[in-house]
Parts: sequence; structure tokens; C-alpha cells
Amino acid sequence: MTASPSAQLIQELAAFAGETADAAAKVTMDWFRRPVDIVNKEDGARFDPVTIADQNAEEAIRALIEARYPDHGIIGEEHGVKEARSPFTWVLDPVDGTRAFISGLPTWGTLIGLLYEGEPLIGVIDQPYLKERYLGTPGASFLNGKPIRTRPCANVKEATLSTTDAALFKGKDREAYDRLLAECRLVRYGLDCYAYAILSLGYMDIVAEAGLKIYDMAALIPVIRGAGGHASDWEGGNDWAGGRLLALGNPDLLAPVSGLLAR
Amino acid sequence: MTASPSAQLIQELAAFAGETADAAAKVTMDWFRRPVDIVNKEDGARFDPVTIADQNAEEAIRALIEARYPDHGIIGEEHGVKEARSPFTWVLDPVDGTRAFISGLPTWGTLIGLLYEGEPLIGVIDQPYLKERYLGTPGASFLNGKPIRTRPCANVKEATLSTTDAALFKGKDREAYDRLLAECRLVRYGLDCYAYAILSLGYMDIVAEAGLKIYDMAALIPVIRGAGGHASDWEGGNDWAGGRLLALGNPDLLAPVSGLLAR
Repeated sequence: MTASPSAQLIQELAAFAGETADAAAKVTMDWFRRPVDIVNKEDGARFDPVTIADQNAEEAIRALIEARYPDHGIIGEEHGVKEARSPFTWVLDPVDGTRAFISGLPTWGTLIGLLYEGEPLIGVIDQPYLKERYLGTPGASFLNGKPIRTRPCANVKEATLSTTDAALFKGKDREAYDRLLAECRLVRYGLDCYAYAILSLGYMDIVAEAGLKIYDMAALIPVIRGAGGHASDWEGGNDWAGGRLLALGNPDLLAPVSGLLAR
Repeated sequence: MTASPSAQLIQELAAFAGETADAAAKVTMDWFRRPVDIVNKEDGARFDPVTIADQNAEEAIRALIEARYPDHGIIGEEHGVKEARSPFTWVLDPVDGTRAFISGLPTWGTLIGLLYEGEPLIGVIDQPYLKERYLGTPGASFLNGKPIRTRPCANVKEATLSTTDAALFKGKDREAYDRLLAECRLVRYGLDCYAYAILSLGYMDIVAEAGLKIYDMAALIPVIRGAGGHASDWEGGNDWAGGRLLALGNPDLLAPVSGLLAR
């Protein structure tokens, strides 16, 4: 176990994460609302496009990391894993919300997360069309440099819920989601990472998703937690292997929400 | 039957519509992403919030119309009907997509439509947070002054479909929507008027909704048609009383899409 990163090192790494987001934004904005070649990664029914923007933006981020922090590991959605020779690993999804992206909708985001000994330390959710950059660090989150806080939604019946696509929940996960949905006041769909940004900003209360990969989640967790929210798996723990992320604006809602999901 | 408005008059009216959108934007942007008092208009289960922004923005628009065109009629979602003493009637929905608005999402819009002898003539879809103003006039539509065109999606199987909430379709409408959904490649939810703006911009192909009111539709139709798209009821006609709006980026898709909806 290495000593925890100093506040100064965290600040340096957060500033660097912003530089990588700038580099990615140059690529993605060049392709947003332009014809994009779409490659279907999967043979199955699920529509999972990969765009040139996605691949080139990840290359731009990786090049910066390899130049500045050659010992750091990298896990990218598009270009795979580079093993770390340090406690730090960057986790990248240059275009989270590809379906929004190809539909010309400004609710996709570039996700840049930094793990320290496997735990989420710093996260960036960048939306360059909106010029919104959400940064999460231990103890504080920011939108374009200004501190943000989740809102104190008092109970599930008053909550705004979001998930990208209810059809992605299968079997017991779908039953669990439907129990939660039935209790909430309002639901919004199709937002991918942007739902977690909006929760961190204080305009949503619960986001629950399943089937996520590490690069879908790593950047989100520091933003949510730094804004005062709760991020965990559906049981309240840190089992990310299941890909079931639960974000709460008010951490006090963990017991009722995880109860509804588990019942 | 009065003579059709001249090109010069249309230009004047379109410019004036932009002035009313500016006035509305001052109000709505003052309340967007701020705590908003929510009044539930309906006693039933449906969540239909009305915000102060909505009411005050409509008052701002109406005041401008009454000062400049006192003979024109006005139909507003919030403040009702003023009968016309001319062929012109303005149709207003200052915040279409109130659920997006209260969730801090930038996909609501201000809708300002102008009817001439009951037919949609000019439409504005304004999204002030995104600084996107879609203007529809006879023969041409614009985003922030630049001409826009729908895209020529060749068939339904390649289409991106959108509707605000599939749960709003009841009975046969739901069956019809599900038949259409099963054919399309991609679907996006929760966008209200912004789906029609994006279709007009060339990044969506089909939008189908039911249960709409005149103030939900009047501004959209000139934008869609001016961009080269098709806007009609689900059967291809102009029966707006049914509140079932079908927008197509490629008018050639009318036969297959209305066939799927009618079967």
C-alpha cells in the first residue's frame, strides 16, 4: 500500500485530466453533427455503434498520458488495456452515449477516470457541445470550476429517476428496476453519463443502471461522491464487476432504494 | 379567403417571432437550473408540472404580440385564447418539455407558431440554453440563420425513431407505435419538441406522437416542412384535432410508416 496521493498531486492530476478532455473535445466536436462512419461492434441485436470520433479521441488521450505519465496504466473502451507500473490507471470512454452522439443530441460525454490502487480517485465527465466539464475529486466536485452539490431529495416518492434504457435490464434486474420506477415521481431516459452529471449538479435524485463496464463507471464515481452523492453497486458496496451502478443525490436514500432493488 | 402573405410580410413576421423568442428566453433562462415552484395542473396520476417560467414567458410573448399586432389571435398553453380579428393567430408553448426543464436537461424548447387562416405558416423552436433557434418558413428552415435540411433516410429499417414517452400511447396507438418501433434501427426518448428540431437538422428520421395539443404542434410543422421533411397526422392528412403528429425527414417514407401505424 502506497501513501495516498497528496492534495498537490491530486490537483496536478485533475488539471492533466482536463488537458486530456480538451484534446478529446477537439476530435469529437469535429465529428459531432457530421456524417460519421458507423461500425457495429457486436453481432447480436444490440445496437452499439463505434465512431471514428470515439477511436481517434481515445488515441489523442492515450498519447498525452503516455507522454506525461508513462508508468500509468490505461484501460480504454476502444484500444484496450496498458498495464500499470504505478498505482495509477486511467480509464477512458471517449464517447459515452454513442447513440445520442449519432442522433445529434448533446447528452453524450467524454469519460476520463483515474483509479488509485484500483479505487476511483478523479473523474471527468466532459460535454464539449454544451461546454460543460464536470470534475470529481476527493471531497469536492465542480462544473467548469464551480463547486456543485447534489440535492437533498427527502424520499423516493419525490425522486426523479433516470436510466439509459429500461429494456437493457433483464430478468430480476428488470423486476428490481420496475419496483423502483413505480415509487418514483418522474423518470428520464436516454442520458448515459449525462444523467450522473445532472444528479451531481442537483437536478436528479436516483440513477440506476446495469451491464456497465469499468470505463462506463470509473469517471462517474468521483464526480457523484465529490458532489455529496452516493455511488455504489445496487447493494451499497463496491462490487463493480457486476456492472450495476446506483447513484443517489441523497446518500440517506440508500436503504430504501437498495431495499426496493433487492426485494 | 385573403391573399397569401407576401414574402416581405413573412420575413417581418419571422423576425418578430424571433423577438418574442428573445423575450421568452430572458424569462426561461432565469429559471432554468434554479429551484422552480411546481404546480400540478391535473388531479390525475399524470405528472404535468407548470413552472413560473412557463407562465411568465407566455405573458412576455403575449405582451409583445398585443403591442405589435393587436388584431392577431393568440392561443397559449398557459393563458388561453384571444380571438383573432385578422387571418393570423399565434400559438404558444413557452416551455415545451417541462419535465426536461425541471430535470436540468437542455432538451426543452420554447414554441412559437403562427397560423394563417388556421394553417401553420411560421414556426420557431427555441432552445436558449443551447443557443439554438430553429425557424421554419414556407420553403425554408434555418438554425440560427443557416439553412437546414432533413436527411434522406432510404427506408424504415435504417431509421432513427423518436417519441417522448411510449407509455403515453394507449390501446391501438400503442400497438401502432410498437409495430413501427420494431422496424426501426434506433430509438430515442424524452425529447419533446427537440426531437422535431433534430429531425429538421438531419439527425433523426421519424418522430411519432399522440395526444398533442395545437400549441405542441403549430410551431413544429413549418420547421419540419421548411427543412424538406413531412409533417402530418398519422394518416398523412392535416387532422390536427386528433393530436397525432408524424414527422418524417424523408417524405417518401410516408407510405411505409403510415402503413405500419395503420395496419
